[in-house]
Amino acid sequence: MNPPLSPDGHPPRIARAFSPASVGNVAVGFDLLGHSVSGAGDMATVRRCERPGVHITAIRGVVTELPREPAANTAGAALLSLLEAECPGHGFELELDKGIALGSGMGGSAASCVAALVAANALLPTPLSREALYPHALAGESVASGARTGDNVGPMLLGGLVLATPDRLLRLSPPAAWHCALVHPHFVLETLRAREVLAAPYPLADLVRQTANLSQVLLGCERGDAALVRAGLRDALVEPRRAPLVPGFAAVKQAAMDAGAMGASLSGAGPSVFAWCEDAATASRAMGAMRAAFAVAGLDSDGFVSPLDGPAAALLAPAGE
Amino acid sequence: MNPPLSPDGHPPRIARAFSPASVGNVAVGFDLLGHSVSGAGDMATVRRCERPGVHITAIRGVVTELPREPAANTAGAALLSLLEAECPGHGFELELDKGIALGSGMGGSAASCVAALVAANALLPTPLSREALYPHALAGESVASGARTGDNVGPMLLGGLVLATPDRLLRLSPPAAWHCALVHPHFVLETLRAREVLAAPYPLADLVRQTANLSQVLLGCERGDAALVRAGLRDALVEPRRAPLVPGFAAVKQAAMDAGAMGASLSGAGPSVFAWCEDAATASRAMGAMRAAFAVAGLDSDGFVSPLDGPAAALLAPAGE
Repeated sequence: MNPPLSPDGHPPRIARAFSPASVGNVAVGFDLLGHSVSGAGDMATVRRCERPGVHITAIRGVVTELPREPAANTAGAALLSLLEAECPGHGFELELDKGIALGSGMGGSAASCVAALVAANALLPTPLSREALYPHALAGESVASGARTGDNVGPMLLGGLVLATPDRLLRLSPPAAWHCALVHPHFVLETLRAREVLAAPYPLADLVRQTANLSQVLLGCERGDAALVRAGLRDALVEPRRAPLVPGFAAVKQAAMDAGAMGASLSGAGPSVFAWCEDAATASRAMGAMRAAFAVAGLDSDGFVSPLDGPAAALLAPAGE
Repeated sequence: MNPPLSPDGHPPRIARAFSPASVGNVAVGFDLLGHSVSGAGDMATVRRCERPGVHITAIRGVVTELPREPAANTAGAALLSLLEAECPGHGFELELDKGIALGSGMGGSAASCVAALVAANALLPTPLSREALYPHALAGESVASGARTGDNVGPMLLGGLVLATPDRLLRLSPPAAWHCALVHPHFVLETLRAREVLAAPYPLADLVRQTANLSQVLLGCERGDAALVRAGLRDALVEPRRAPLVPGFAAVKQAAMDAGAMGASLSGAGPSVFAWCEDAATASRAMGAMRAAFAVAGLDSDGFVSPLDGPAAALLAPAGE
């Protein structure tokens, strides 16, 4: 994970990194559990510069209408947090290449934030561990969501399925064969609206049901027991409130289950829908069935199939100067 | 687990069983997580009889003012459920010897129910597995609590630390060295009152905190990682509402933590307080400190030290006829 040194033995002046997308919440771990997803992601290029602070010089790709003011941009805010802690008075230029659509529920703001941190980290005299980048990623993510939630940045930093508490990241080890189908309908769900429907408090009975579900999913992943995951991978709290915001959701979920998924629910705040499957072939079938169901609801979509134990963000070959 | 056969090769006509006490809820798993506790418990003696149905012929010990009407008694209701499913038209006589105080939060009603089932099961031509007794134990427990909650009967049936969903029991495997201090102050907390304070619904933020705590405790137990348990073993939901009902609770909890406990909270609905410790010596110190703190609050108490991986209910030597 150490950065390539320049020919003169000093840290490089420029680094690029890619962060994958992610499935947040995972039905049973609201703001807590997530996993990375291969096949989509954001890229960040960071240069050391003379001007102190963070300077966003370009935003390209599928989303360009993001704040350029660094404190208002998730990636910018994450770098400001890193600079302040590790090398106050120094400066970074940041370019973002967005591959994840805005408001898709695939962790787009988190991916920019993590890609920028992983790139900038490579420019430090002594790069930090991924765990040590986590507080800076939370600082960035809070700009987008208003909360320091790690269920997207956590899996991007470490790879795979991660439990992200406010204080720590814990990697889980689901079987390598288990795959996720993730389908993103071309429909923008406002994150703010998706949060609003969650505000009214929850009865204790729903909570008991949800904690039973969460426990079975965690133990199922730790023990590689698909029956436990099948029993637990259902959302008693959030999905009932958010599903009505996503056209066709019930049919899409049913299509995934009919294709043999262990469970399916909204990815993050939606509208993307994920399904966990015991192997890649089932995930591929589920993805096709889910896309067909969204088409019936009048929505085009993109689909991804990824191991649950998906990739971590990674440095790319140096871009040169 | 098979019963001793009578000399004539038929199932015996009488059996006795003992069920240990338990810590329910365990701070993070309301109505879901519990473990058995050695050193206290209830005994049941069951005889096959000619009169169909369940007949409670004696209730002795520390509690005697329990309903004799079988459908209104947890142990009686459990046996009615077993009879109906396994041998309708047959009859059982039941005697209870109560060792667990009423309203102590140590699973007294559950222990009577499990002891009666384990004894009666030995009288069946083909005894059921402990897992198959679980639905009957839930039927009994629901008479006492109004809900089919398995966090006390589950650990009594299987022994140790158990996750008890409405549909299944999952045994966890905490390290053998981990011990629990359980202190029962001589103060009766009405279960109904303890339930009432939980009725108002819960904000999502508390829920996220609680699920993070639960996840860390489960993974800490699975992985034998005390740091995870220390981070997670705190109740964000129920303890804040119930603690004011127990005189001296804050001081008792603090005494346990000062003695080195990983965490402490109410056992079941209280007023008993448990503390999890990394070894028996620490648990013993914690127990002493907790009892001293209850004494300052004017309450006498009993104390127990038990491995988390405590005993299961067991048949006792046949009483003879």
